[in-house]
Amino acid sequence: MIIVIRPHATKEQIAEVIAEVEKLGYTPAPIHGAAQTVVAAIGDERTHANLESLSVLPQVESVLRVQKRFKLASRESHPKNTLVDVAGVEVGGAKFCLMAGPCSVENEEQLLSTAEAVKAAGATVLRGGAYKPRTSPYEFQGLGKEGLRLLALAREKTGLKIITEVLSERDVEHVAAVADILQIGARNSQNFQLLIEAAKTGKPILLKRGMSERVEEWLLAAEYILAHGNPNVLLCERGIRTFETYTRNTLDLAAVAIAKKESHLPVIVDPSQGCGRADLVVALCCGAIAMGADGLIIEVHPHPAEAMSDGQQQVDFAGFQKLIETIPPFLRAVNKSV
Amino acid sequence: MIIVIRPHATKEQIAEVIAEVEKLGYTPAPIHGAAQTVVAAIGDERTHANLESLSVLPQVESVLRVQKRFKLASRESHPKNTLVDVAGVEVGGAKFCLMAGPCSVENEEQLLSTAEAVKAAGATVLRGGAYKPRTSPYEFQGLGKEGLRLLALAREKTGLKIITEVLSERDVEHVAAVADILQIGARNSQNFQLLIEAAKTGKPILLKRGMSERVEEWLLAAEYILAHGNPNVLLCERGIRTFETYTRNTLDLAAVAIAKKESHLPVIVDPSQGCGRADLVVALCCGAIAMGADGLIIEVHPHPAEAMSDGQQQVDFAGFQKLIETIPPFLRAVNKSV
Amino acid sequence: MIIVIRPHATKEQIAEVIAEVEKLGYTPAPIHGAAQTVVAAIGDERTHANLESLSVLPQVESVLRVQKRFKLASRESHPKNTLVDVAGVEVGGAKFCLMAGPCSVENEEQLLSTAEAVKAAGATVLRGGAYKPRTSPYEFQGLGKEGLRLLALAREKTGLKIITEVLSERDVEHVAAVADILQIGARNSQNFQLLIEAAKTGKPILLKRGMSERVEEWLLAAEYILAHGNPNVLLCERGIRTFETYTRNTLDLAAVAIAKKESHLPVIVDPSQGCGRADLVVALCCGAIAMGADGLIIEVHPHPAEAMSDGQQQVDFAGFQKLIETIPPFLRAVNKSV
Amino acid sequence: MIIVIRPHATKEQIAEVIAEVEKLGYTPAPIHGAAQTVVAAIGDERTHANLESLSVLPQVESVLRVQKRFKLASRESHPKNTLVDVAGVEVGGAKFCLMAGPCSVENEEQLLSTAEAVKAAGATVLRGGAYKPRTSPYEFQGLGKEGLRLLALAREKTGLKIITEVLSERDVEHVAAVADILQIGARNSQNFQLLIEAAKTGKPILLKRGMSERVEEWLLAAEYILAHGNPNVLLCERGIRTFETYTRNTLDLAAVAIAKKESHLPVIVDPSQGCGRADLVVALCCGAIAMGADGLIIEVHPHPAEAMSDGQQQVDFAGFQKLIETIPPFLRAVNKSV
Repeated sequence: MIIVIRPHATKEQIAEVIAEVEKLGYTPAPIHGAAQTVVAAIGDERTHANLESLSVLPQVESVLRVQKRFKLASRESHPKNTLVDVAGVEVGGAKFCLMAGPCSVENEEQLLSTAEAVKAAGATVLRGGAYKPRTSPYEFQGLGKEGLRLLALAREKTGLKIITEVLSERDVEHVAAVADILQIGARNSQNFQLLIEAAKTGKPILLKRGMSERVEEWLLAAEYILAHGNPNVLLCERGIRTFETYTRNTLDLAAVAIAKKESHLPVIVDPSQGCGRADLVVALCCGAIAMGADGLIIEVHPHPAEAMSDGQQQVDFAGFQKLIETIPPFLRAVNKSV
Repeated sequence: MIIVIRPHATKEQIAEVIAEVEKLGYTPAPIHGAAQTVVAAIGDERTHANLESLSVLPQVESVLRVQKRFKLASRESHPKNTLVDVAGVEVGGAKFCLMAGPCSVENEEQLLSTAEAVKAAGATVLRGGAYKPRTSPYEFQGLGKEGLRLLALAREKTGLKIITEVLSERDVEHVAAVADILQIGARNSQNFQLLIEAAKTGKPILLKRGMSERVEEWLLAAEYILAHGNPNVLLCERGIRTFETYTRNTLDLAAVAIAKKESHLPVIVDPSQGCGRADLVVALCCGAIAMGADGLIIEVHPHPAEAMSDGQQQVDFAGFQKLIETIPPFLRAVNKSV
Repeated sequence: MIIVIRPHATKEQIAEVIAEVEKLGYTPAPIHGAAQTVVAAIGDERTHANLESLSVLPQVESVLRVQKRFKLASRESHPKNTLVDVAGVEVGGAKFCLMAGPCSVENEEQLLSTAEAVKAAGATVLRGGAYKPRTSPYEFQGLGKEGLRLLALAREKTGLKIITEVLSERDVEHVAAVADILQIGARNSQNFQLLIEAAKTGKPILLKRGMSERVEEWLLAAEYILAHGNPNVLLCERGIRTFETYTRNTLDLAAVAIAKKESHLPVIVDPSQGCGRADLVVALCCGAIAMGADGLIIEVHPHPAEAMSDGQQQVDFAGFQKLIETIPPFLRAVNKSV
Repeated sequence: MIIVIRPHATKEQIAEVIAEVEKLGYTPAPIHGAAQTVVAAIGDERTHANLESLSVLPQVESVLRVQKRFKLASRESHPKNTLVDVAGVEVGGAKFCLMAGPCSVENEEQLLSTAEAVKAAGATVLRGGAYKPRTSPYEFQGLGKEGLRLLALAREKTGLKIITEVLSERDVEHVAAVADILQIGARNSQNFQLLIEAAKTGKPILLKRGMSERVEEWLLAAEYILAHGNPNVLLCERGIRTFETYTRNTLDLAAVAIAKKESHLPVIVDPSQGCGRADLVVALCCGAIAMGADGLIIEVHPHPAEAMSDGQQQVDFAGFQKLIETIPPFLRAVNKSV
């Protein structure tokens, strides 16, 4: 780390900083500029104390980090792309992964008809929420275990792999018994206890980026999973909070390229949550592919206007078919295929 | 809700919207303007389907909510201020509540000396993290149960009430066995399963606002607790995410006034997290009091430069004493006292 | 507009609102729901008073707009894409427009060598700042008129069209004497006097989106130009302000699709400003094309590390060549070509 | 500046960085850590080249600034508070400055009645917009020169000083002929040409913070004025853009304390724009005073519901009177008086 000393600090004040740096386990290397002094603290920033605490000293102007905070998730530590095996479906390679299905599992008819439709169109993974995190307690909270039973049934009937969200440490075990991928939602993106519990199952984990999470923080959340022995992490960009009100969120497609550059983990994009409007989904899918995404997770519903949750962002079967017909040239441009 | 139909929609398209509104349980009331038609949907927006799903129809331009989404947390439903009883200490009334203590419980000496110092200065509640949610898995994660033991010891020695964070549903029971107030942190502000579990203990809950949570969403998170039978909610503003980089967060003091206006629940302000800099804490405390806060929660450490977490935002004992000497005129201005 | 009356308002209070609505020139249409009343105000929201002022009345809970605020810029008013003629180069059609050149014009050698390099690679428009808006008064402010002279020289030598920024109403005339496109920067995106002055020249105007401008506000800024008789507007997405610190700005590629959907104006993307990092420019160009952009404006410098402004976001000639080789498959995917 | 070299960079790559640092006029001081090397570049960061351009080199991970970018605006360069003389009214000292008046000057009756009301209540400066920057070209743009005439008349009748906004370099001269304070609005906060032109008049300038301007950038905009020879700058916090939708802007009261700490310039708060809701103005005024503001600028209108601009955020005469009665205890708490 670099400790920037204020101009006009006394020798004693500088010596105090140097002594603290040493006491906290780093080797201090002071550099005296014309206007002010900086002290470089040599040592591993991940394993030593965080020297930002030194900014409480009146003579310290600021403390700057030098090293990256994430390691296992970093491209440096693992230069090749990680391929995640989802019950036989490989994610992160030349095969582009299409996950699709309803926001919430509502009933057998709704889920199975959607599963068949998305399978026919080329999806390999079925999404569907059994446990739903809803902003208001008065909104539909999902079918719970009955939803899981229907997801298992849909897999049996179609062969699609299953991705579904887990909201609670207590549910991890029984959700993992059904799911091929455990989804951690944006609201739980820094619920580290849930991440650790999910990591222990060894199942692939789709980790959504938090609503106002910096890419570094997102990768550090992934680091929690990796550091608990589970290398099967799929990063998922799903839109961030900004001042824009036309869309529910602002899908941050630049973050896809950043995550691919800084990390070796596959990146999935959720355009449905990412904008909250069905009419933008196709365009965002094209953009996501061009930015280097390894897959898409798309909300599809037989009749979105009457969906029990987030109908406004779900495409119907015809809409999904249109999407499937639109993306091939973009996939070819990045040397991928469904 | 109000469904805004696009200009030039056909009669049939308008009829389709009206039929959907009816099917979803509302009474439709169309109004034909010169340029476009709007359909008012009469009915309880909390108990009926969310008509935002209708915006998937091509003839629908937008759907506008009319009613407030929160009820139990609203000032309308409970015009008087709620007073929360924290093991005999009343929060939300004329007595201003000072909570103070270290970011993390580090050891007995650190905790007890801080407890005594903040008690002597006028605090009635001791804060201290036993379970710490840290952005990186390589950072100090708290002492866990040993931390709880030390907090119980500090209460025994000083009589201070205890507030401490709970991160996991599985910890709720043993944390609640020690804590007088359960703290839900910003990262778990929409971890609804944790909120529900904490609610069930009946203990007062300090609910921090999420990093990019709108006030409406914060009150809806409180609504989860209230709807699960626990009326003892303390709202806590702790800074939001913005583009500003001078501070770690932007403390949103305006939100204090908004929360007091829209809700009957007490509002506590956390200036330490709120700015992430010890040198701004005193000013922010004065501002918080002036905006109508019912209390403060302040990070205090015997030697912040060497703290095991977030030293940069902790004041030392002298700093806390100075704060205590600064705030009385502001408390008098709002007719409160410590 | 829709005026939402608070629950429990008296008949007299409702009548007061209705009377104000009428006085302000609208036809009121009250709808009495179970819980509360709303008053629809029928009339043209663009030409009448803004009823948001009614929210000062204690019985008014909120005021909701129904109509779009922009008209000339809207897709409704002009369903076909606008084609802008830049001195013979058509922008907005099947021909994709590549604008490239240095951030700042620094000297003849730098500008001419860059002009030749970008022309050889396929660019049709040369960018280069003669007047530079710099955050600090101590930073290089551009060569001014000498910069314009060099731009004119570069056009003469290469045949490239010229785009350059105008910062001041007083400069509009002499900048327009050289420029084929007047650029309005993000900092002046709502400098309406400058927009009007630039509009009067009749020259094409590239209007950058403000740093925290909603798409609606961006289109309203375009509306200023259109309403002053100049139909030749190019919208330019150049990144917005968010909490992310990895990049200088967050390039909002979703806004490209929104602008294309809501408006008929061409949309250009600036990936250089949009991320502030040369290493992300290629990926962002691919994403921009996939999202439907009509062109790109890219910063290119012979030796970015020694550039007089924003070197970190400029690609060198080899980098530009690589970009040019990367984008064709993406252009084919959207049926465009350079 | 500090140049952070990537781990595993070669000796030659490090030497290249050192050579560039030297070439760009700094003295390089390399520090070799265990994992990576950093190069401190010693020299004045304000007058030398910006080394951020070096981050285009593949071996450079990041470039960190050490020195502050603003100088004349900084507290270091001018430890005592600056007092600004507004035609005999001193701002920035123990006398708290109240500026009040309508958003827009609408007519003689409206302006004079408001001037008298706010004067009677204790204001010393009358605000009123003659030139109005409006998001839409279809909204009321102000009375222009007639507005200025009415402001001059109001000063003649009441003795109040006048503050009014200037939007255009071309208007600076005739606005300055009437105004005692020139207001630069948020949309022009980085319209540097306007800042320079306004600076030249020597008149006090109230500089609003831009909608998404960091405090550092706000002080750098002030630096433009100071560097052009005009020391009479009043900083004005007026709310920033966030994700919150309850209010029009989020008033950033923390920024008041930051600006007072980092700079010697007086800070004025605009709670009307800052929240866009009349019902929050009183609370925000109390908060602003507690945070150390030197004055307030408040929108007051005889009949806000019928105002020609921004009625929703204007208080009426009774509301202003109530505000005036509420603030004295807060002023006493900070040892100020009206």
